[in-house]
Amino acid sequence: MSGIAEELQHRQDRARRAAAARGWAGLLVTPGSDLRHLAGYDAMPLERLTCLVLPADGPATLIVPRLERAAAEAAPAGALDVRLADYPDGADAHDLLAGLLPGTGRIGVVDAMPAAHLLRLQDRLPAIRWERAAPVLGALRAVKSPAEIAALAEAGAAIDEVHRRMHRWLRPGRTETEVAEDIAAAIRDTGHARTDFVIVAGGPNAASPHHSSGARVLAPGDAVVVDIGGTMPSGYRSDCTRTYVLGPTPPPGFADSYAVLQAAQRASVAAVAPGVPAEAVDAAAREPITAAGYGDAFLHRTGHGIGLDTHEDPYIVAGNSEPLREGMAFSVEPGIYLAGRHGARIEDIVVCTADGVRRLNTTSTDLVHL
Amino acid sequence: MSGIAEELQHRQDRARRAAAARGWAGLLVTPGSDLRHLAGYDAMPLERLTCLVLPADGPATLIVPRLERAAAEAAPAGALDVRLADYPDGADAHDLLAGLLPGTGRIGVVDAMPAAHLLRLQDRLPAIRWERAAPVLGALRAVKSPAEIAALAEAGAAIDEVHRRMHRWLRPGRTETEVAEDIAAAIRDTGHARTDFVIVAGGPNAASPHHSSGARVLAPGDAVVVDIGGTMPSGYRSDCTRTYVLGPTPPPGFADSYAVLQAAQRASVAAVAPGVPAEAVDAAAREPITAAGYGDAFLHRTGHGIGLDTHEDPYIVAGNSEPLREGMAFSVEPGIYLAGRHGARIEDIVVCTADGVRRLNTTSTDLVHL
Repeated sequence: MSGIAEELQHRQDRARRAAAARGWAGLLVTPGSDLRHLAGYDAMPLERLTCLVLPADGPATLIVPRLERAAAEAAPAGALDVRLADYPDGADAHDLLAGLLPGTGRIGVVDAMPAAHLLRLQDRLPAIRWERAAPVLGALRAVKSPAEIAALAEAGAAIDEVHRRMHRWLRPGRTETEVAEDIAAAIRDTGHARTDFVIVAGGPNAASPHHSSGARVLAPGDAVVVDIGGTMPSGYRSDCTRTYVLGPTPPPGFADSYAVLQAAQRASVAAVAPGVPAEAVDAAAREPITAAGYGDAFLHRTGHGIGLDTHEDPYIVAGNSEPLREGMAFSVEPGIYLAGRHGARIEDIVVCTADGVRRLNTTSTDLVHL
Repeated sequence: MSGIAEELQHRQDRARRAAAARGWAGLLVTPGSDLRHLAGYDAMPLERLTCLVLPADGPATLIVPRLERAAAEAAPAGALDVRLADYPDGADAHDLLAGLLPGTGRIGVVDAMPAAHLLRLQDRLPAIRWERAAPVLGALRAVKSPAEIAALAEAGAAIDEVHRRMHRWLRPGRTETEVAEDIAAAIRDTGHARTDFVIVAGGPNAASPHHSSGARVLAPGDAVVVDIGGTMPSGYRSDCTRTYVLGPTPPPGFADSYAVLQAAQRASVAAVAPGVPAEAVDAAAREPITAAGYGDAFLHRTGHGIGLDTHEDPYIVAGNSEPLREGMAFSVEPGIYLAGRHGARIEDIVVCTADGVRRLNTTSTDLVHL
């Protein structure tokens, strides 16, 4: 068994023990990051059923469409202690899966399982209690191994390089979409396997946190939020936001709100340490923003975990009292959005370390004029 | 109301009537192609709940995270007769949604709804019977309007252009992955907004229908399956497969199997007409392949519908006795896969027309030597 296969087997063993501790008969894992985490299998998203059955006790089975069998065998999943079961087009894959499960008891299901599959399983096994596996798998995935942190650091360095090149593309007279297309190409050029999202939001558009990019022509004096990310060949993700001003003169009032934002982002990064509740990091960002009178303009939580998914545990949000642990990786990204006027956001990915925090995005958060 | 908004309102009305006819209290539509079809809203895939509540009777509501509100208002959804309800990070969106639903009865749920949401709704409303909306929505989406067919034809022409340029990239000495990267760039260059998949499977790898692309160096005499597709700015998809041979000499036995495959693909395209059962088109491809002794080597169904999703209704597969209808668009893509030796597939997107069939991919299916 290779090193990768050993790591995957170790993850499966931890997941099985956690399932047993919850009283679950087992876990059902359909394609997505949970399957990639547990079996190293980056399955194509298809309407056909693919599902890893991981019993609390007993042998694991990976159900795959017959035409995916060769791909599954070639993945690390093929080298694990997992039985492959395939079915041809037209066969009832849900009957096949139901036949591997008990008739009663409780089963954990990954968050990504589509209703298409869950509803058909519930029809076939009406006495099972189906529960979200996310609290268990999310907690296991939230704490990264040194190899995972290295992969996230590599992703962070790649997206930092895209921000460093921003002056090549971001200038007045171009549309948000034109700039976004150049950035998307640069995300791939800097080592990502895939561009996941490119937000270029200029002027009043920046006041919508998830404005994507559009036909608006950028103008001198615009503040522009650029929030970008991609997936590395390792499967690990990048996500970094900087706000730029076009030309020497920011919009009226912008300099004040940006100074508040920068201080708040620094304070919340500095609040990260093992044992600190996740919501305390949110509060560390929110309090100075509220004190400066921008509380209603900070429309979202402070951050989200990152790994094989762009958004995963831990969430840095009021109400999440879970203590941070060494190895957790997440974004710290407060924003101030003033409808009809302008917006700004600063986002770094950070890792909780034994003695505090490490930033995986290392470009300056000082306002950059282009 | 614009033309687009009128078309969307019309689709919502049809969906509501179909839900009422099934005895459903309403439909729940989370992000994905169903939401884009019904509300023109191409929502970001987030862990936060976004859901269109479409009651059989009564006003429609679109629940969105607060930070997505501006994006939702800017989408066609914002111009429809749909109430927007937002919630801040940290609020319980599932309580909000459950409060809009009855406590008993039956509700249709789109196939794409993640278990993350469905399980939390089931917890809150234990007396509801949750059913797959797919049979209803799939049937509505399967028959395309003239505007949708025009969008699919545009996608088909774009992907045909990529196949026409294949000689620029596909040659011995390059790896599958290198070729795939060039093709991915060309998919974007020919007018697609996004590359969805690139399969470059050479030599024995072509015997795995969904082999993606890898480190294998292409060699003279390889037969190479190239199956590629993307999404146009309209949201409609392309998907076309051709098989190429590198150099003048195909692998032993390949010419025979390819001739059988080409005849089978032509016969199954010719079988398309209104009223013909979907499975008859599958049989028209399968029978000549079986008669030539390759039946076991045709590992998958003959085709799938295409539109806002790459795979959607109607499925061209044994067991689907639903009659084809004018306006249905789907792939016809038989393949012959000989493990350890070689593989081939030919795929066209076709539309069922009043008097037969129209191919949306128009390049020759004759074997191309590069």
